[in-house]
Amino acid sequence: MKEIRVFAPASVANVACGFDIFGFALDEPGDEIAVKLVKEPGVRIVRISGDEGVLPLDPRKNTAGVGVLKLLEHLKSEVGVEIELHKKMPMGSGLGSSAASAAGSLFAVNALLGSPLSPKELIAFAMEAEKEACGSAHADNVAAALLGGFVLIRSYDPLDVVQIPVRAELHCAVLHPKIEIRTEMARKILKNEISLSQLVVQSANAAGLIAGLLQGDLALIAKCLKDVVVEPVRAALIPHFYDIQKAALENGALGCSISGSGPSIFAIAKDRNEAAQIGYAMKEEALRNGLDCDLYLSSINQKGPKVL
Amino acid sequence: MKEIRVFAPASVANVACGFDIFGFALDEPGDEIAVKLVKEPGVRIVRISGDEGVLPLDPRKNTAGVGVLKLLEHLKSEVGVEIELHKKMPMGSGLGSSAASAAGSLFAVNALLGSPLSPKELIAFAMEAEKEACGSAHADNVAAALLGGFVLIRSYDPLDVVQIPVRAELHCAVLHPKIEIRTEMARKILKNEISLSQLVVQSANAAGLIAGLLQGDLALIAKCLKDVVVEPVRAALIPHFYDIQKAALENGALGCSISGSGPSIFAIAKDRNEAAQIGYAMKEEALRNGLDCDLYLSSINQKGPKVL
Repeated sequence: MKEIRVFAPASVANVACGFDIFGFALDEPGDEIAVKLVKEPGVRIVRISGDEGVLPLDPRKNTAGVGVLKLLEHLKSEVGVEIELHKKMPMGSGLGSSAASAAGSLFAVNALLGSPLSPKELIAFAMEAEKEACGSAHADNVAAALLGGFVLIRSYDPLDVVQIPVRAELHCAVLHPKIEIRTEMARKILKNEISLSQLVVQSANAAGLIAGLLQGDLALIAKCLKDVVVEPVRAALIPHFYDIQKAALENGALGCSISGSGPSIFAIAKDRNEAAQIGYAMKEEALRNGLDCDLYLSSINQKGPKVL
Repeated sequence: MKEIRVFAPASVANVACGFDIFGFALDEPGDEIAVKLVKEPGVRIVRISGDEGVLPLDPRKNTAGVGVLKLLEHLKSEVGVEIELHKKMPMGSGLGSSAASAAGSLFAVNALLGSPLSPKELIAFAMEAEKEACGSAHADNVAAALLGGFVLIRSYDPLDVVQIPVRAELHCAVLHPKIEIRTEMARKILKNEISLSQLVVQSANAAGLIAGLLQGDLALIAKCLKDVVVEPVRAALIPHFYDIQKAALENGALGCSISGSGPSIFAIAKDRNEAAQIGYAMKEEALRNGLDCDLYLSSINQKGPKVL
């Protein structure tokens, strides 16, 4: 095999109660990435589409290239790769766009080279790409994008990612308001200090969400999908966030919060029909308030990137 | 049935990463409580042993009485009870002594009255007793003592307790240094503010511990039994805490931290033999440093109080 084309999933990080520790991948949207092995060593990004011309072709400055450069170096590869990146998801949306590109290109190159590394081993390389894109080496999006399913980043040093099986019926509605929130800004406005009582509430919900997911307890999942630390601060960056959240919850969402650093808003639903109903209610509420947006409906991606 | 004698378990609260949200019950030590139904309404504590004379016979001031008073009132009971309380565990030790007395007397009275309430429903009454004893209505010890097993206090308002099944092989070594730490003091020295990065680490470990317990993953449990918020502060109240903790970990403990507000130190072990080895190492280390102490070895109590 000399060429491969893969789908790399968008992902939802934080998941309400799990700031910097929880993430899950979606079955749509995502990137499509085509990779070709070539004799000439190194990484060349030969084509990018769907980015409105903003992403660099320089592989050292594009998340689709950074991780692969490190991977080829690590494997002491004598061959090189050519990458085509087709963005089929919004960038700067809080849906892990840079992570999808990093995960997809790493998955593709690793597969072409005979899968010398496991998906878990690829996470560290994808984190290097995230560092280039976002300024910090976060793992919540890239781990979800590479492994699929729901992930807990238990520790960064050393990196320890725990996979949490999720019921296949669970679906997600994601509303992407077409406004820009810069990740640095979304991080800067967070308070560096929180109260002990916020810790108690937030960690109880984080622990409870894991119990709910593992035990398939939808009522428990719903009770735990709350964020008393980050959402109250970042909601101010998203016009009509609380109206949209209310519409989601009133239409049966198990929970609804900000995806990553926003502006996308995710809602978890017990099945596809509910997700559709919830998603349309969210979109209607956004449009009523003059907020232009896109809606995605997706199952929870169970496997990470896939070969197309 | 007019009389009953029950065992009510000691319990370990916080469990390293779960400040105010995690607890589990022990099979020993604990209280023995004898309760008799009598015609005359009200609650009388007729005998207390093992308390070195410090506990009050006034049922409104003794946790064995407070909860029962509320329960009889709630049930509009026309009969009364006489309670004998035999303390067979240390008080003020961080092992939930007041919670054991509250849980045991409530369990006994409820059983004598034909079990009108479930163990979960008794928690609110036991919390009233805790409020009298400790000044605040904490649920971590009483919920563990009433339900057995490992509990997550997911929320206080409304009260929501999640039971987490635990492998029967897991054992616990508990070292009780014979020093006094007042609960108010142990709480007062905590910082009211913590950093966002402490939240990330602590909630990741709390979520991971639940995953480890539910999936029976001992390695994960061991990695998560860490406390970056409370232990670093309270360790200063327990002479040679870190030496004792080191002895436990070097002898194979999955984790070792302060039980509740201390001074007791618990270590979790994968089976009874390991718990014994760990416990003796902890005790040896304490004694070497001139710290007088008692050692308890116990399985994780799976059922809460039991009829003797």
